[in-house]
Amino acid sequence: MTTPTLKLYELVLANGRSVSPYVWRIRYALAHKGLNFESVPLGFTDIPRAFGGEFKLVPVLEHDGKRMNESWDIAAYLDRAFPDRPALFATPAEFAMARLHDEWFASVLMRPLFGVYALDIHDAARPEDRDYYRRTREQRVKGVTLEAYTAGRETRLPAIRLALAPLRQQLARHPFLGGERPNYCDYVTLGAFHWVASVATVPLLAADDQVLRDWLERGLDLFGGVGRDPRMRALFEP
Amino acid sequence: MTTPTLKLYELVLANGRSVSPYVWRIRYALAHKGLNFESVPLGFTDIPRAFGGEFKLVPVLEHDGKRMNESWDIAAYLDRAFPDRPALFATPAEFAMARLHDEWFASVLMRPLFGVYALDIHDAARPEDRDYYRRTREQRVKGVTLEAYTAGRETRLPAIRLALAPLRQQLARHPFLGGERPNYCDYVTLGAFHWVASVATVPLLAADDQVLRDWLERGLDLFGGVGRDPRMRALFEP
Repeated sequence: MTTPTLKLYELVLANGRSVSPYVWRIRYALAHKGLNFESVPLGFTDIPRAFGGEFKLVPVLEHDGKRMNESWDIAAYLDRAFPDRPALFATPAEFAMARLHDEWFASVLMRPLFGVYALDIHDAARPEDRDYYRRTREQRVKGVTLEAYTAGRETRLPAIRLALAPLRQQLARHPFLGGERPNYCDYVTLGAFHWVASVATVPLLAADDQVLRDWLERGLDLFGGVGRDPRMRALFEP
Repeated sequence: MTTPTLKLYELVLANGRSVSPYVWRIRYALAHKGLNFESVPLGFTDIPRAFGGEFKLVPVLEHDGKRMNESWDIAAYLDRAFPDRPALFATPAEFAMARLHDEWFASVLMRPLFGVYALDIHDAARPEDRDYYRRTREQRVKGVTLEAYTAGRETRLPAIRLALAPLRQQLARHPFLGGERPNYCDYVTLGAFHWVASVATVPLLAADDQVLRDWLERGLDLFGGVGRDPRMRALFEP
């Protein structure tokens, strides 16, 4: 097989780690399809400048000189552009249903998770990105400081752990959220856990959350361990 | 095509309407597959006696004399037993992902909905079922009376309407939750709305919830209008 020319523009922290949950989906999607790519690491303040204003968010994928963004559009594009590689979505319904899972996860978990880790992201960002991150994110939460926004965050963890119950229920029946084999539902969700793990100074999950722990281990082993990272330990209480 | 011998045991109210959200899924599943069935209506107190103790919950499906329960098992069975009819699940991942949607919906919505409509169900049940319903359901909510459990329910509606946001997001992109065509994600969700509509004395949805209204209309039109019922108007504020 020829090696296509793919570049993935990613958001990175001071330690160089890829942090965006939406980029992580595409990292998994590319691995699922067996596609290699060149990574282009960007900090928060690089992104608005990197694409001449065309894109304000990563992931951005470049394929043979053509750039595109929006993780769902990129995922759909990968199946169209590389039909001989393993499909991310075997049917149109699979695409729609993965998106529905994403909507549930976003609605139920992403804001509460941001409420716990918003300041940790700041602290883990490259020093030159921190003021920009703080200014833009504090605007989003109506001018509340990141410190105030995350104050008392430990008290919110029990509700967040409870809200992950649908994942545990599903994983009590199947090894992956997508069933017997990993699919984009898993990549969406693994992406969010990578995001949290990249920055967490308070563990998201209880030490005895064995169902999620086992699934995360299976997820990190996928595709030769592309997601393997000692930081993932930060997800669990010791 | 030969007409297979199918009986669906259903839970009915005093007005004869099928009320169980899990039965409604199977009603839609049978319609999706173009299968006719004989309905066997049961009240709450009939169910424990109807199957000689074998099944405690409906739906129960009887096919050529063989009985089975559990809506997910029945749905999977229908695809195995009638492979020449339209598939409910085109791939194993579609089955798993529909189930994941069900877990989200159950976790986020079903208990709050029960908290609003628990007493309405009682009042709509056959008179001879009401004491049994009250006793078993009050046990489930730790001995709280249905009246106390549903007190102040109007104040909880805004949060429930907000929690339906993932459905609206999905339906802003696709005519059905399952994508361009209705699938089991839609039937799971329509079933819950039928359950509510069967009993509601307070409307679940705001009058201007156009995205959900349009989807419900599409859902009620499916398969020659098997779900059509004037009660569905009870879902919306006037």
